[in-house]
Amino acid sequence: MLDKLRRLPLAELPGMAEELRSTIIDSVSRNGGHLASSCGCVELIMALHRVFDTPAEKIFFDVGHQAYAHKLLTGREEGFKKLRRYDGISGFTTPLESGFDPAVSGHAGTALSAALGHCAADPDAPEKVIAVIGDGSMGCGVTLEALNHAATLKGSKRLIVILNDNRMSISGNVGALSKALNRVMAAKSYNKFRSRVIKMLSPLPKLKNFVARLNEAGKSMFLPPALLFETLGLRYFGAVDGNDLQQLIPTLERLRKIDDPVLLHVITQKGYGCEFAQADPTKYHGISGCDPDTGEMAVNNGGFSEAFAAAMVDLAEKDPELQAVCPAMLEGTGLRKFAEKFPDRCFDVGIAEEHALTFAAGLAAAGKHPVCAFYDTFLQRALDAVYHDIALAKVPVVIAVDRAGVVADGPTHHGIYNCAFLRAIPNLTVINLAAECEMAEALEFAVKSRLPVVLRYPKGGGAAIPGLVPFEYGKAVIRKSGKSGEPVLWASGKEVATALEVAGNLEKYGCCCTVADARFLKPFDRETALKFADSQQFVIEDHCETGGIYSALSEIFSAVPHAGIYSFAWSAEKVISHGEIGKLKAAAGLDAASITEKIAGLMQKKPI
Amino acid sequence: MLDKLRRLPLAELPGMAEELRSTIIDSVSRNGGHLASSCGCVELIMALHRVFDTPAEKIFFDVGHQAYAHKLLTGREEGFKKLRRYDGISGFTTPLESGFDPAVSGHAGTALSAALGHCAADPDAPEKVIAVIGDGSMGCGVTLEALNHAATLKGSKRLIVILNDNRMSISGNVGALSKALNRVMAAKSYNKFRSRVIKMLSPLPKLKNFVARLNEAGKSMFLPPALLFETLGLRYFGAVDGNDLQQLIPTLERLRKIDDPVLLHVITQKGYGCEFAQADPTKYHGISGCDPDTGEMAVNNGGFSEAFAAAMVDLAEKDPELQAVCPAMLEGTGLRKFAEKFPDRCFDVGIAEEHALTFAAGLAAAGKHPVCAFYDTFLQRALDAVYHDIALAKVPVVIAVDRAGVVADGPTHHGIYNCAFLRAIPNLTVINLAAECEMAEALEFAVKSRLPVVLRYPKGGGAAIPGLVPFEYGKAVIRKSGKSGEPVLWASGKEVATALEVAGNLEKYGCCCTVADARFLKPFDRETALKFADSQQFVIEDHCETGGIYSALSEIFSAVPHAGIYSFAWSAEKVISHGEIGKLKAAAGLDAASITEKIAGLMQKKPI
Repeated sequence: MLDKLRRLPLAELPGMAEELRSTIIDSVSRNGGHLASSCGCVELIMALHRVFDTPAEKIFFDVGHQAYAHKLLTGREEGFKKLRRYDGISGFTTPLESGFDPAVSGHAGTALSAALGHCAADPDAPEKVIAVIGDGSMGCGVTLEALNHAATLKGSKRLIVILNDNRMSISGNVGALSKALNRVMAAKSYNKFRSRVIKMLSPLPKLKNFVARLNEAGKSMFLPPALLFETLGLRYFGAVDGNDLQQLIPTLERLRKIDDPVLLHVITQKGYGCEFAQADPTKYHGISGCDPDTGEMAVNNGGFSEAFAAAMVDLAEKDPELQAVCPAMLEGTGLRKFAEKFPDRCFDVGIAEEHALTFAAGLAAAGKHPVCAFYDTFLQRALDAVYHDIALAKVPVVIAVDRAGVVADGPTHHGIYNCAFLRAIPNLTVINLAAECEMAEALEFAVKSRLPVVLRYPKGGGAAIPGLVPFEYGKAVIRKSGKSGEPVLWASGKEVATALEVAGNLEKYGCCCTVADARFLKPFDRETALKFADSQQFVIEDHCETGGIYSALSEIFSAVPHAGIYSFAWSAEKVISHGEIGKLKAAAGLDAASITEKIAGLMQKKPI
Repeated sequence: MLDKLRRLPLAELPGMAEELRSTIIDSVSRNGGHLASSCGCVELIMALHRVFDTPAEKIFFDVGHQAYAHKLLTGREEGFKKLRRYDGISGFTTPLESGFDPAVSGHAGTALSAALGHCAADPDAPEKVIAVIGDGSMGCGVTLEALNHAATLKGSKRLIVILNDNRMSISGNVGALSKALNRVMAAKSYNKFRSRVIKMLSPLPKLKNFVARLNEAGKSMFLPPALLFETLGLRYFGAVDGNDLQQLIPTLERLRKIDDPVLLHVITQKGYGCEFAQADPTKYHGISGCDPDTGEMAVNNGGFSEAFAAAMVDLAEKDPELQAVCPAMLEGTGLRKFAEKFPDRCFDVGIAEEHALTFAAGLAAAGKHPVCAFYDTFLQRALDAVYHDIALAKVPVVIAVDRAGVVADGPTHHGIYNCAFLRAIPNLTVINLAAECEMAEALEFAVKSRLPVVLRYPKGGGAAIPGLVPFEYGKAVIRKSGKSGEPVLWASGKEVATALEVAGNLEKYGCCCTVADARFLKPFDRETALKFADSQQFVIEDHCETGGIYSALSEIFSAVPHAGIYSFAWSAEKVISHGEIGKLKAAAGLDAASITEKIAGLMQKKPI
């Protein structure tokens, strides 16, 4: 496809764009994925691959979920048909998939740093290094750190930053920088004004120097993005229409010849060319699938996010101090509902995870009851804030962690590592929810505790569990009582349901297991655990094998005679792929059937 | 002291400043601490407490190590005599110590986020909220995230940002923002120029509107910091001399009346009023102690940082691809030496931990051999980059981690939590060094492995260990062979020496222990461990009790019959204080004597 792209006459490129876009819509509607942003930058990606000598010249995408056209152009058409499937390709860029992907990119904001590394590695190389960064990433710490570093770095003359400005991170941008970007439209009126002033002043010889300065400074006066980036040492160009190949290609050709770090401001339309996605880009940001023609989606079956949304609204009615903080995930976490009802009590801080938590710590120290909503994988970016700004001062921030556990998106998005760190942090309580029916009570429990609490729950809905058991601080819940000396199955989150299923299966082998829900990972219910010393204990958890329940139990029993503890969890020795959760679990031996078989084998039991 | 400060006539304040400064020099010279920055902002802190109604109006310090004068003014004179001692006060701010400290601040860059939380908690409160941020923090992600958020936040009219610009983070600033700040001196010439132009243009009626615009925009033309902050929606004032109370006090009084978010640019002199610190502020940034009159310091006894410095220089001679990356710790990590010898191969990226690692990942992906030097506590801020940007793509970045373990500075600086997270991350190798004589070999081993490696070592020097044992991937080292069935002492890092001491002590109880150095925490030497199933195993580690060797062993033996595993490590249930390491260890029962006694007791042995 790359050959074709570079060979075709300019006039035929829009047709190619249409083809790419329809392939994207087709695959995403079937497999799920990021539709609106990917549709929005088809032309931009085509223009980049046409003008630059990829892969010798490298394109770094800031979040690879916009890079579907890039995948199609670089030999991944077959795999793309099974986008995000276990036997298909990843929804993000990764060098393990293609030589055209210079970096892993699933967490927003990293492109510029990685691109600068490439620039610096060979500062005088003639090849350009391109970083495509979203306007949402402009509020993200690591992007800003890199922007600060960029121009002062030897080798940055190789850098071309493409600011892909679609006017929203996921659901609309926040912050002063985004406001500044939006003021770019004054450009045209500025240009007129400047010519008029220059004409008027030119005859006055004393002002000659002033006019020259005005020419430079004028940009800054009327183009806030220009002054911003030029202060940072980047030459600013734009804004150009990022869905118009006729504008993009010649502009990029000119920029390629410039021997300075440059930034091209490109305005793209999220969802461009896909009617329904363009009409509601937030709805079609990341989807599980839809009708390719109408965009119709299966009705959401509720699940934890929705339970969280409802619980927040309900609690807010009772607790006037309750507030919500969120780093650019209002939709995904369900907080949008709260934001609409209590706009003054909801803070979307943009893609700024560290700031979100430290800001929430400030709210809490000032007497508010903040609940900060994250995806598990993005909390990884703010672990220091959990320790330094929340736990050390013991300020009562509740961190609601959605998407805990392995997710279809793959390694950049799995929520299976944080507990390892959180379990080591003093003053912290870590709770895992087994079913959405527990949400309201758990949230109220966490907020009322006036302690720093991490409340974790998986994506989607949990399978049914028997009855709602009130939360008692630090206490595990016995979900099924088995016979003394028979196996004990420990689990938390969704895996409580798996454990119950396994327990049911094992009855066919003559085993009457206990199922214990370790809803408090920290503090761990040592007392309950010690009662099971005579039983073989099996841990089923949607977390890395180290740092969760299995580690806690192993430590508790390290010097206590016991009958053995076994882990069913994700390996810490290999990267867990993307794909359907069922297939990922089966491949790792973590589905109920595999676990049943393994336990039965260990116990040398046969079906009765 | 606060009363006195507010009562004294203006003319007598410099005398008070001198007293405060001499108290600071006296205590820091005896106890160690941060001298240069604290001396530099005595006047600034006095002016703030004089003008603002503290503690109702709150001052957030961005890194509390500059806040010594604040501590003295707010009732902590007695404790300050024992600054950073176990029975004295902390070297940083913390609400657990005083109601005048609204937040914990040991990691740079958090003040603005926390202050914004306070503003937002009660947006219409009349009290101002003051955030004192260093120029070094201007390159730090979380500060930049907060800056972006600030002006768009309801309640930010309460915010007064004091940009305490001492022209260096620790050892000189980097980046475009810092360059922009330094261009502030054009201010005077700008003011002259502007008056001249305005006079000249005023008679031309058509240009009236233009003149008004010029007045606003002019600032931006000639004052890069102004344009920057005003783009971000903060009203910029300055720069004023931050060591001049006569300038500071009236300026702050005026700012207090403004109902907008403002930023005051204050230029302070690092080390001001302390001759030797002013002459070499980098040397006197953080010290262990010195002669209070001359600044003479005890000769550094080498230690791990120096060994690292030497090893880097040596390896760079052999390996032309070796490069160094560091987030503002060139001095502390010893990299300054490398930077001087190989300026083109050393990147100090400023206080930008995430960017440092992602940038290094870029260097590595482009074929370089980057070594990224951190303090352990600051690596906490970049754990996501370890996973997302380094481990997932398996790019060969070596992360050299200094100050691993508990340090005198206290909870904000202990390096005892990261291993818990790192141990869960695939594709990662984690090595702990027991003595500085191992550094050169370990570093070369790590770089040559072409794998992502974390190389950890403590502050200062390790006690002697017998002989240098070559590094074999994933293999533990038996430092002392004991009798079969007798206790095995596991340790890593400096604690290998402790374990040897304990083993020596236990001989007096008739025990002939084995000492095993688990230098590879990941992958852990399972094979060696399993050989010791018949021995009681005791783990001595300078890490949180969860996430290190003890967890690894507990997991390995979770389903294997064994004689018991016991941990001597830092509690995950309580915050570890500041103070002399010896006292901290003794209080936690982690010194050799306590450990010996505990083990002997467990084994029911008496001295022979």
